Amino acid sequence: MYQKQLLLIPGPTPVPPSVLAACSRPMINHRGPEYMAMQRALEHDLAQIFQTGSYVAILTASGTGGLEAAIVNFLSPGDKVLAVSIGAFGDRWASTAKAFGAQVEKMDFEWGQAADPQRVADRLAQDTNREIKAVLFTHNETSTGVTNDLAALAAAARGHGALIMADAISSLVAIDLQTDHWGVDVVVAASQKAFMTPPGLCFVSASSRAWQAMASARMPRMYWDLQQAKDFSDKGQTPWTPAVSLLYGLEVGIGLIKQEGLANIFARHRRLGSMCRAAAQAMGLELLADHAQASNAVTALKCPPGLGSKQIRSLMQERYGVVLAGGQGKLQDSIFRIGHLGFVSETDVLTAMSCLALALAELGVAVDGAAGMEAARQALG
Amino acid sequence: MYQKQLLLIPGPTPVPPSVLAACSRPMINHRGPEYMAMQRALEHDLAQIFQTGSYVAILTASGTGGLEAAIVNFLSPGDKVLAVSIGAFGDRWASTAKAFGAQVEKMDFEWGQAADPQRVADRLAQDTNREIKAVLFTHNETSTGVTNDLAALAAAARGHGALIMADAISSLVAIDLQTDHWGVDVVVAASQKAFMTPPGLCFVSASSRAWQAMASARMPRMYWDLQQAKDFSDKGQTPWTPAVSLLYGLEVGIGLIKQEGLANIFARHRRLGSMCRAAAQAMGLELLADHAQASNAVTALKCPPGLGSKQIRSLMQERYGVVLAGGQGKLQDSIFRIGHLGFVSETDVLTAMSCLALALAELGVAVDGAAGMEAARQALG
Repeated sequence: MYQKQLLLIPGPTPVPPSVLAACSRPMINHRGPEYMAMQRALEHDLAQIFQTGSYVAILTASGTGGLEAAIVNFLSPGDKVLAVSIGAFGDRWASTAKAFGAQVEKMDFEWGQAADPQRVADRLAQDTNREIKAVLFTHNETSTGVTNDLAALAAAARGHGALIMADAISSLVAIDLQTDHWGVDVVVAASQKAFMTPPGLCFVSASSRAWQAMASARMPRMYWDLQQAKDFSDKGQTPWTPAVSLLYGLEVGIGLIKQEGLANIFARHRRLGSMCRAAAQAMGLELLADHAQASNAVTALKCPPGLGSKQIRSLMQERYGVVLAGGQGKLQDSIFRIGHLGFVSETDVLTAMSCLALALAELGVAVDGAAGMEAARQALG
Repeated sequence: MYQKQLLLIPGPTPVPPSVLAACSRPMINHRGPEYMAMQRALEHDLAQIFQTGSYVAILTASGTGGLEAAIVNFLSPGDKVLAVSIGAFGDRWASTAKAFGAQVEKMDFEWGQAADPQRVADRLAQDTNREIKAVLFTHNETSTGVTNDLAALAAAARGHGALIMADAISSLVAIDLQTDHWGVDVVVAASQKAFMTPPGLCFVSASSRAWQAMASARMPRMYWDLQQAKDFSDKGQTPWTPAVSLLYGLEVGIGLIKQEGLANIFARHRRLGSMCRAAAQAMGLELLADHAQASNAVTALKCPPGLGSKQIRSLMQERYGVVLAGGQGKLQDSIFRIGHLGFVSETDVLTAMSCLALALAELGVAVDGAAGMEAARQALG
């Protein structure tokens, strides 16, 4: 039998059947009236979801493309950039800025920790000449399962004047992000996370301050050029051929988001995160992140002594059809991650944790599965 | 009733039902074994289709992204590039090279004409210091419906030593392109043309000469970095999350290509092109391209005196559900284009041309529809 799978990685996330079905609709002319109406509606809804009054560009690329777009549209070679990194994706964004000639100053926090707003404020206070042009934050660090307090980080940076940019790829829709209210100038998200849509689209919002910065930003750009995207958006189009079938899916995914409501979705993800952490801890497993900073979108667990994440994940997938993620970078084999964002239910988390208890027992780890389930039930409320 | 449409634009092209259905399969882990097997098989098949022994990278982007990748991976700022342009897409590629700091010398041919290999050979012969690092060719210029003699152009450039790059986005699979045999160093194609797959993927092949050039190429790159793509490809993966559902579609699309066979597909496109041109001319319409250079993937027709392409296209779409493309750039309203590449049958072309005859008659143009149909029938053979 073709194996039935429960996909619980932090992206691509499970896609609802109605979204999948939409992805198989026939092609239309991407310069024609039906397409234009669809793109206009999507952009309108995206702005609501981003909690911004600004234009949100839809780009055909995975999230990393959106991170590159955020760099090359608003900066010039030689610009100083403060890259606040708490994991692999923070590092990736810093490398991107560096690759395009920015003078990148990394502010690193230990993997598993959140960024400290005070350290950010202190560093920016020293920059009396206002040489730092942008500060890069990761809202939710997928590689470590840590959510930054982006509201506090943005507040710490706000007075300085540098552009505040946030990688919200694995947070947006799952975790509250008040783009305009918090004063985040550039926000990057992607389709394959809490948007419940297959990968291949990313979204970039830019404040009026960011648009002003763009006017003098000299990094080379063509495919990612947001000015061209905006000019075509005014006609309901994209400059380059868009991924039409993924936009069909996004339309249905956003419909589901509007139906459930952002507040309810955030609450569901808080429940999923709490259940996952409570079960893990009651079973005797150790979280990588501190409880207060742990992500409600993805949970990173330390492998029990003597076990590698590959072993655990292989058994989970082969025996139970539950697909988990390994670690990234320096944590590759020492942690494993459970994605619980997007089209994921409370029962999915219960299933994953009960299979995990069985798998670990089979691997010789003494875990208390019953205690884990009871803790999850209590967290369910 | 939801309007039944015959989509005959040069991309996105009509997608076969089996490809559409594949696009709605559930997500899988893009770092897991099923995915890796799929990517390996796709890369193998792509190399066959590209007629190359080299690695073909799959990127999540529309074709323009592939054109950018071709520039930034193999060139350095300040490098001289000879950009041979016969239309809007040749211009776009030249602009991309310029945006990334190449010293671009345009060699323009009149829109509707093919590039002259002799002029290319003469220009390169003058470059005795070998300052020109790359020559950019468009295989099939979608904006004008002209196919370049890429074999002759590549032969004209071969002795010089510059990298030979070809935009084959609207030609590959529809029109023969012998990458290795003709010595084309970099070839760019995309999913939404003759691959019969929705837009969102592009493909880039690179010869060993191109890989050597990459080692010293200093244009900034991250998302398009083919070295990273190759390193991950060795593990059956992509560096960034791929557009999984489009790869499902591509798998089925390539299956259909293998079933029909490249030689038969080329022959079918020759038939489609001949039928379209024969019908148009018998009806009294004028082709933009000379007959010998006219594309078998897309036909550009001049609007009859007094009519704009918008008028013709609107009536075709509203009354008959036949979707055609307008002109691009300076030809925007003076030509219209019929795409006949990918999942397009001889009957589709007959349908389009007979509806066109009716539409033009309604718009007051004296066309001989019956002669058009008879000419198409004869071209069908």
